[in-house]
Amino acid sequence: MEETDDTLSLVLFSGTDDKLTAAAVLAVGAAAMGRKVNVFLQYWALEAFRADGIHEDHGLAPEAGSEGTRSVRLSHLRDGQQHWSEMLRQAKDVGEVGIHACSLSMDTFGLAKDDLDPLVDDVEGVAAFMGEATGPVVFV
Amino acid sequence: MEETDDTLSLVLFSGTDDKLTAAAVLAVGAAAMGRKVNVFLQYWALEAFRADGIHEDHGLAPEAGSEGTRSVRLSHLRDGQQHWSEMLRQAKDVGEVGIHACSLSMDTFGLAKDDLDPLVDDVEGVAAFMGEATGPVVFV
Amino acid sequence: MEETDDTLSLVLFSGTDDKLTAAAVLAVGAAAMGRKVNVFLQYWALEAFRADGIHEDHGLAPEAGSEGTRSVRLSHLRDGQQHWSEMLRQAKDVGEVGIHACSLSMDTFGLAKDDLDPLVDDVEGVAAFMGEATGPVVFV
Repeated sequence: MEETDDTLSLVLFSGTDDKLTAAAVLAVGAAAMGRKVNVFLQYWALEAFRADGIHEDHGLAPEAGSEGTRSVRLSHLRDGQQHWSEMLRQAKDVGEVGIHACSLSMDTFGLAKDDLDPLVDDVEGVAAFMGEATGPVVFV
Repeated sequence: MEETDDTLSLVLFSGTDDKLTAAAVLAVGAAAMGRKVNVFLQYWALEAFRADGIHEDHGLAPEAGSEGTRSVRLSHLRDGQQHWSEMLRQAKDVGEVGIHACSLSMDTFGLAKDDLDPLVDDVEGVAAFMGEATGPVVFV
Repeated sequence: MEETDDTLSLVLFSGTDDKLTAAAVLAVGAAAMGRKVNVFLQYWALEAFRADGIHEDHGLAPEAGSEGTRSVRLSHLRDGQQHWSEMLRQAKDVGEVGIHACSLSMDTFGLAKDDLDPLVDDVEGVAAFMGEATGPVVFV
């Protein structure tokens, strides 16, 4: 039993642009409410943070379908909705937001810290991440 | 640091019938245990709550395969398992369950409140939702 | 309002090897930090725990792509990364980890307790699971 903690821990697993946008929206919302945010990048989400590909098209969830894909694309053009990486940058500006790469996933994909976008603060083991995750943990 | 809160916050992102059923099962279980439930609808889950399509076939996760799909369909016929929207209606009857549409996703899909099933209580921004989400936050 | 609880509740829904590995990594990390872990198996994750198929190839998330699939497979060969079921077994050795099959999903797939790998401790209803889930709840 420990004190309640309102830190939001976000485990990002999926690397499609819709899920990353949904996660970035939660991070921005939490940071705006003064909550600390801790992001942990695994698997396909880690891949999406590669320095040379973060702004590439990472696709949408398979269930998007052609009409859904069209709505999402149009909305970005029409409303100039920000890219999820910009939202995360903004969340870092307004609050305490740490972005950590999972060391095991780094090994899986043969990545080094320099291969990742500067948005990523460091590489961390899962025990360190889970040790701090006493508030809500969201897996995306 | 705030008081512990046993409210269950459910962020629904996926719109397939298996994930929505799994989420509705958690909502019913939490409501039955006397916990407050707060549901936030994003992306494909929001689409699934359209007034004119909530009972349509929304498919299953891609991993279902043909045998899995058959089991799920048969189980609904055989056991008369309830539709996820009925489960959520029931959760609202037995407990304090709020269903909120994410304002950003409403914009993305060009939806207005009247386009949604009456199960949806209102449209809400993510900061308002995250401000209340001090208990577990589950992303489905 | 209840006391804070650092138990990690893991709802496993997806049955692909990448998601199950990501979940097992979280379970191991939490158990290593002395946290109690409660796992609840629904749908495709439950299917993956069948006694006669737990070590079969359960595929990867659709977004893996051919290059991603190759990285994951190579990493398992190269580094001898453990199977997710071994990680969970290890988590059970080092900490207090319970693995429960969702009774509703058991019905959906027509499964009995004996059809499942011995890693699974028992069959449980969702209300029992949610009643204990006062710490973070992670849906994978």
